[in-house]
Amino acid sequence: MAKQEQTQEISQLKDIIAHAKEYGFVYPSSEIYDGLQAVYDYGAYGVELKNNLKRLWWETMTRLNDNIVGIDASIFMHPTTWKASGHVDSFNDPMIDNKDSKKRYRADVLIEDKAAALEKEGNIEASKSLLSAMGKLLEAEDLAGIRELIINEAIKCPISGTTNWTEVRQFNLMFSTQVGAVAEDSSTIYLRPETAQGIFVNFLNVQKTARMKVPFGIAQIGKAFRNEIVARQFIFRMREFEQMEMQFFVRPGTEMEWYKNWADTRMKWHKALGIPEEKIRKHDHEKLAHYANAAMDIEYDFPFGFKEVEGIHSRTDFDLKQHQEFSKKKQQYFDPEINQNYTPYVIETSIGADRLFLMTFCNAFVDEVADGKSRVYLKFHPAIAPVKAAILPLTKKDGLPEKGKEIFEKLKYDFNIIYEDAGSIGKRYTRQDLIGTPFCIAVDHQTLEDDTVTIRHRDTTDQVRVRIDALHGELSEACSFRRIFEKI
Amino acid sequence: MAKQEQTQEISQLKDIIAHAKEYGFVYPSSEIYDGLQAVYDYGAYGVELKNNLKRLWWETMTRLNDNIVGIDASIFMHPTTWKASGHVDSFNDPMIDNKDSKKRYRADVLIEDKAAALEKEGNIEASKSLLSAMGKLLEAEDLAGIRELIINEAIKCPISGTTNWTEVRQFNLMFSTQVGAVAEDSSTIYLRPETAQGIFVNFLNVQKTARMKVPFGIAQIGKAFRNEIVARQFIFRMREFEQMEMQFFVRPGTEMEWYKNWADTRMKWHKALGIPEEKIRKHDHEKLAHYANAAMDIEYDFPFGFKEVEGIHSRTDFDLKQHQEFSKKKQQYFDPEINQNYTPYVIETSIGADRLFLMTFCNAFVDEVADGKSRVYLKFHPAIAPVKAAILPLTKKDGLPEKGKEIFEKLKYDFNIIYEDAGSIGKRYTRQDLIGTPFCIAVDHQTLEDDTVTIRHRDTTDQVRVRIDALHGELSEACSFRRIFEKI
Repeated sequence: MAKQEQTQEISQLKDIIAHAKEYGFVYPSSEIYDGLQAVYDYGAYGVELKNNLKRLWWETMTRLNDNIVGIDASIFMHPTTWKASGHVDSFNDPMIDNKDSKKRYRADVLIEDKAAALEKEGNIEASKSLLSAMGKLLEAEDLAGIRELIINEAIKCPISGTTNWTEVRQFNLMFSTQVGAVAEDSSTIYLRPETAQGIFVNFLNVQKTARMKVPFGIAQIGKAFRNEIVARQFIFRMREFEQMEMQFFVRPGTEMEWYKNWADTRMKWHKALGIPEEKIRKHDHEKLAHYANAAMDIEYDFPFGFKEVEGIHSRTDFDLKQHQEFSKKKQQYFDPEINQNYTPYVIETSIGADRLFLMTFCNAFVDEVADGKSRVYLKFHPAIAPVKAAILPLTKKDGLPEKGKEIFEKLKYDFNIIYEDAGSIGKRYTRQDLIGTPFCIAVDHQTLEDDTVTIRHRDTTDQVRVRIDALHGELSEACSFRRIFEKI
Repeated sequence: MAKQEQTQEISQLKDIIAHAKEYGFVYPSSEIYDGLQAVYDYGAYGVELKNNLKRLWWETMTRLNDNIVGIDASIFMHPTTWKASGHVDSFNDPMIDNKDSKKRYRADVLIEDKAAALEKEGNIEASKSLLSAMGKLLEAEDLAGIRELIINEAIKCPISGTTNWTEVRQFNLMFSTQVGAVAEDSSTIYLRPETAQGIFVNFLNVQKTARMKVPFGIAQIGKAFRNEIVARQFIFRMREFEQMEMQFFVRPGTEMEWYKNWADTRMKWHKALGIPEEKIRKHDHEKLAHYANAAMDIEYDFPFGFKEVEGIHSRTDFDLKQHQEFSKKKQQYFDPEINQNYTPYVIETSIGADRLFLMTFCNAFVDEVADGKSRVYLKFHPAIAPVKAAILPLTKKDGLPEKGKEIFEKLKYDFNIIYEDAGSIGKRYTRQDLIGTPFCIAVDHQTLEDDTVTIRHRDTTDQVRVRIDALHGELSEACSFRRIFEKI
């Protein structure tokens, strides 16, 4: 990427972060106490957008597919869960400390930063060979080798400027806490680092009580926590985040078909949400996790480059088998069609609700100059827009506010709408553009005569006159999830 | 309460817990690892019921009131938040250990159990005076006095049977964890013990970005965590739970009016949900928390007695003033109507989503004998029922399944419905009764002739013949939140 281009894109991210804060979408957490690193709060419009995205995903999974049901497992789980899943032993980042600055870094990130610097200088080959050397060492879990690489490359601490490094050690990313007050019963538990395991440990509970037949899926939305060392890029990588995961249980041997199937279905979903073809792509994992026999990311072209929004993973029977081993309870399914017991294979679709939010926000953010005037607006699909319509009486007199409120009362049960009568109509339109409201409903003197209003469309700024009694139908039609469902 | 009655009620709770597990509503967390005390997971029908309740509350708050908006603050907050709120210093339970059994107990619970035993023996006066003595000691934070009371009353450890007690100490109920890997930056943070503070620290952010004018409210749904020592009564008191809180900011001096107003509004809401008059009551707090100038619980008559479902609290300006002091940032509002700056007073409505779930479940649970036959069903209001309708072809042949699926496809986008064609129709009706589905739609041979189906109503078991093209309208009408909203 050329330097100028990169600067532009960073500046776009800054604009987006500023807009998100100023217009009530995302604030730094506990901001009055100067914030908490890598944790954010969603404001009045942010929470509506996020809730709409979550509900859209939920209904896509559980309603469009009559063989998918949901669950809501707790964040606290029995600690053996994380032994079985492998997180206690290997959910680590390699860390290194600089002895002079006393600062700690992710060793792999130090090397990646060096590689990026080499690339910038035009040293493409050196950059590539450095990354490849690191890859091999990480794979071999050769921490001493990683340290040697850092020393040999003369990578300096950005604070102290020295190469006075400690050993490289593994650092577990799970947050832990103590549960129970009874001294001898008190035990360490973890905040779940992924929601998936809540599905796996409930596999048989759900299969039996909801009487599911393989192939079937279990969907879940919930918080997960990772003690990320390098948490950055706004809400892209947070220490507390929300996942939307669906684990699809299939007959062994059919997993590759389902894997492709789900990857395609999920790509269609993103495009139905309004993400353009050229901004989204599939990216196969180069190195597979120990539990997977196929894996890819769905990546979006964020202001900081193509990055993962969703992962599609063929997790084999790894998780169920591990839980069977650690719990000593059979995690199998009897398939009446082939009269056989087996451990199902699993295809996972895993998307971060916050990343989906960020993608949607970046994709909606328009800062354009038209007719010599600059205009900023958020072009959310009406089905997910936080506010569907604003009722705006042209003036504060002549009975227009009363008429406006009458319309508001008729629509408020079924749509999230705003009523506003203060300020010029132009300013009020702008205000709605900035929070992404697709329809502004202006109430004017003609309304009093013939019960019509104008609908001003956000993206085109076109104004169309419609009858008041047609408003409910127009909004229902435009804002229905069905408009997205039908494209999948 | 007479002993027989009490036994009956405990047995009803057992039936409810068993039903919730067997029919996919609530499972013990990580059950394959023998569970995690006081933590539960919601199954396929449980999550739908809980989501419906959450959405109903959310829309009640944010749509019915044009001066209430939502937020979604994180679970992790800056630790100073909990110094300001008083939780670090005083969110404690008094604990005592038995030196022989090494078991730890809540000192107040030991005394309460003793009082209950005295009452059972008919020693009503002794019971009352014991509780009153404890109340005074707790108020004075006289921990040595509490210990003396335990010794004087000869309260024994239920395990060792001895009175060999340690001192009484305070035990903080907040879960803590370490954030950050950088040694010198690593710090203790807490899992929020209530969602309210996420609203208070964002008071100005929301007021400004959503341009709210006092009086206005901020609503939030989210997880909270308390390291409860005595966690019992199923999902009534859990270590991980979900709160739905709304903080309503008002002009000082108007708080008592708003307090009564919100208490009445919330009572109406519960009754609109179908809770009978005699099963719900207001209960004023006898002792007020340090931040309150009025407080009450809304209590439901659970199988274990009248217990809090929701709290209505007049929190004064305590929280905002504390955050102003600790953050050194003004937490004030300029009121243009009276041309004055002030710290708003706050009325809080705080309801546990899990308790609301349990109340709804207990209230819906019917185990009756009619016409000599016993029948168990869950009489959820259709607006919150997890599954709205089941499409049931009478037989698996003659094209009835195809017709049934055609109907399913027409309805599935807008309602959570089930299609089922295996087993006798009677068994399938029973199955839907057990998960509380209000409508069973039977497809029979007449359907093929005249495009009509029968709707079998859960509560009455009456069957009514309707046209297929009327189904969508009937379901919409019956299952709309509007039916509840209009009663508030």
